[in-house]
Amino acid sequence: MKYTSEVIEKVVESFSSLPTIGKKTAQRLTYYLLKQDEIFLKNFSEALLELKANVNFCKSCFNYTEEEICSICKSAKRNKSIICVVQEPNDLFAVEKTNEYFGKYHVLHGLLNPLDGISPEDLKIKELIARLNEVKEVILALSPTVEGEVTMQYLSQIIKPLNIKISKIASGIPMGSSLEFSDEATLSRAIESRVEL
Amino acid sequence: MKYTSEVIEKVVESFSSLPTIGKKTAQRLTYYLLKQDEIFLKNFSEALLELKANVNFCKSCFNYTEEEICSICKSAKRNKSIICVVQEPNDLFAVEKTNEYFGKYHVLHGLLNPLDGISPEDLKIKELIARLNEVKEVILALSPTVEGEVTMQYLSQIIKPLNIKISKIASGIPMGSSLEFSDEATLSRAIESRVEL
Repeated sequence: MKYTSEVIEKVVESFSSLPTIGKKTAQRLTYYLLKQDEIFLKNFSEALLELKANVNFCKSCFNYTEEEICSICKSAKRNKSIICVVQEPNDLFAVEKTNEYFGKYHVLHGLLNPLDGISPEDLKIKELIARLNEVKEVILALSPTVEGEVTMQYLSQIIKPLNIKISKIASGIPMGSSLEFSDEATLSRAIESRVEL
Repeated sequence: MKYTSEVIEKVVESFSSLPTIGKKTAQRLTYYLLKQDEIFLKNFSEALLELKANVNFCKSCFNYTEEEICSICKSAKRNKSIICVVQEPNDLFAVEKTNEYFGKYHVLHGLLNPLDGISPEDLKIKELIARLNEVKEVILALSPTVEGEVTMQYLSQIIKPLNIKISKIASGIPMGSSLEFSDEATLSRAIESRVEL
């Protein structure tokens, strides 16, 4: 299929290389952009360039930031005696959205995976350990997958001997969903982790 | 919700202002882009700028092009005695994808809509009439909505007296779908437009 403009083709290609966006949506987005004013496209285009140029990792927690240290690490309002460990910056964002957590974070940038050759040195584990002097509790908020469980076990083995409380977030039936449709692994984990009333 | 970077927020906002992209997908796309290399982002950003700067309407059919006249209008291989009339450039693209049509096109850039105050002067109808000297057939490929039907009726009233064959594309049950799930309007149109075997 040939477009009547190479630029249109270029934009469609760019969009359709993004996750969740197929060829058809990419076309729709491109034709939508063609109808927008110049300022919108200029802003969008500039923001994309700045994304790589201005955003880097926080030297402390390895979240994305435009400064040396991110706003969460700098904030005096956040409890620095608790660290929540997440896999990626978007997981951090997901925890932030709950509006229930007021400690600090640490982003590992991956999970242990011996099969893919991802070992502790490939993650920000050394940097996590270096931050633990004043820390009283570490919450592991990693996905309950095989890699997640392996990573949590590894971290627990290192952190427990330091006399720091370590916990992982609960697995169980998602709120609002029905027992009938949950899989056996989730249900058996939920029974195992039952909470006394 | 505050992001730890203004640029990230800007890109998320840009994405989520596009159709079919919600806040969550916008976040996902932004975090994906943060992991891509600089060249990809630079190309994407440039293409967006060029979209508005380089792409304009074909002086003949009003499709998008980077030149005066689009490649379809220029092509000697396309039958210039047939014109397929569509609402928007993406409809033209949809017809092109069938690989079954080898005539020329004309993009109206809208449909008649008296309620919204869209009259014949707001569409490229004058420009269509001006192209009809050598044309033997006009195919109306407009959506079978109220506005589409009104526009087709209007065009038919103008074009028929010029002794030019005029047709509209068929409405009916979509290929591969089942009768059971088609709505009454579609089914009754399909019966009405039944084809002799």
